[in-house]
Amino acid sequence: MQELTVGQFDIIGNFFSFSIAAMGAATAFLWLNRSQVAPSYRAAVTISGLVCFIALYHYFRIYSSWTGAYEISSGALLATNARFNDAYRYVDWILTVPLLLVELILVMKLTKSETISKGVRLGLLAAAMIILGYPGEISQDAGTRWLWWSLAMIPFLWIVYDLFIGLKSSLSSQPEEVRSLVNAARWLVLVSWAFYAVVFTFPMIGFTGGAATTAVQVGYSIADVVAKAVFGILIYMIAVKKSAVEGYFDGVASPVARAVR
Amino acid sequence: MQELTVGQFDIIGNFFSFSIAAMGAATAFLWLNRSQVAPSYRAAVTISGLVCFIALYHYFRIYSSWTGAYEISSGALLATNARFNDAYRYVDWILTVPLLLVELILVMKLTKSETISKGVRLGLLAAAMIILGYPGEISQDAGTRWLWWSLAMIPFLWIVYDLFIGLKSSLSSQPEEVRSLVNAARWLVLVSWAFYAVVFTFPMIGFTGGAATTAVQVGYSIADVVAKAVFGILIYMIAVKKSAVEGYFDGVASPVARAVR
Repeated sequence: MQELTVGQFDIIGNFFSFSIAAMGAATAFLWLNRSQVAPSYRAAVTISGLVCFIALYHYFRIYSSWTGAYEISSGALLATNARFNDAYRYVDWILTVPLLLVELILVMKLTKSETISKGVRLGLLAAAMIILGYPGEISQDAGTRWLWWSLAMIPFLWIVYDLFIGLKSSLSSQPEEVRSLVNAARWLVLVSWAFYAVVFTFPMIGFTGGAATTAVQVGYSIADVVAKAVFGILIYMIAVKKSAVEGYFDGVASPVARAVR
Repeated sequence: MQELTVGQFDIIGNFFSFSIAAMGAATAFLWLNRSQVAPSYRAAVTISGLVCFIALYHYFRIYSSWTGAYEISSGALLATNARFNDAYRYVDWILTVPLLLVELILVMKLTKSETISKGVRLGLLAAAMIILGYPGEISQDAGTRWLWWSLAMIPFLWIVYDLFIGLKSSLSSQPEEVRSLVNAARWLVLVSWAFYAVVFTFPMIGFTGGAATTAVQVGYSIADVVAKAVFGILIYMIAVKKSAVEGYFDGVASPVARAVR
């Protein structure tokens, strides 16, 4: 492994622990509050919690793998025989990124055929993006990293374009009260997803040794917390507002909503 | 144990971790969403979650047993004194396979006598299949493996035939809206179950050493995720559609359903 300092080792471990706490809190919040939205939005909120739950599991594994990969001896950091396992992130992403897309599609309440076609298309593109990124991630060679990064960028740009433009055009079909929130979700997807692509390039654009490891691990942790936990809360807020528009307050149908049901 | 490489050891460990995440996510999804289906389908959805929950437990054990069975020293993989325990899979299957059959029978909503006779018959056959497979699984001898494989194939073929043909003939009694999903469940059972039988034969048809171990462990992990988690989601989708046909939306009875209740 690269020449990490004890300070860098600690910072990375602390960010992993922060991610565990944030993902656990978001999972609990979303699952406890799912009954606060109208029944038709509960799937979106449940899946938002599921994404954070899967990430919670993987951050536990990442944290254990990290603390097991080094030991401190007379103030110096030494690599142990157990290596840090980068694969946990990619296993996490292959499960959570398609689900993130599903939670966004579900809360938009598109037509059934649109929901299915969009879900399948974006889900497959997301899987391709992550599978193409992995060979680059585990390589120490900048040329190899750029190659796989470029390949992964093809489905990446397709998804982001599809969501960013697609959500914009469907804004008009959303109730006025939620348009600014949906717009925020659009921008959050664009910015947080682009951040992953930038973090990937850190070792190729000047960061070396321990600084590269720190920049990548801290960068991915922040990106994960924003793209999963913060995004999940935003999905929940959209679900609450849309429920209110449809006559549900705190998950209970108003007499009017009950009558038109 | 066979001469595994560090890469093969890592791949197998990562598949076990993936299975933990997938089974945990499916358990949470199914149990959180059981209230979204009509009350008469909740047992099927609860049991689908139970199957994934039992598998979740066993994959935790399998993962620990795996990582404890080897250590890396100067870049080479060495077997420790703790051996990898194959029995966890068989204990899992003896509990989950009969339950998998029950969840399928329950969601079909057959007559009571059919439900009981089919459940008992298929459950006993499934137990016989798994008990007959185990002596072969723990043997390194191809002849012994073929013997027990052939014996296990008798109840296996009986179950698959019974389900595949039985479900086909009961398709006509299912509402039209769910026929394609029930048909998908039929094929998923056929393909994923056949995959187990094929994975078992990998060490007998040319895979040797570390490649055989990798093919078997990765193969069983994929088969388990498909046959339990993906199958469970399919059962849930069938339950949602049948609930809607019966006038239940998001688990709530429509006024019409309430009137005929």
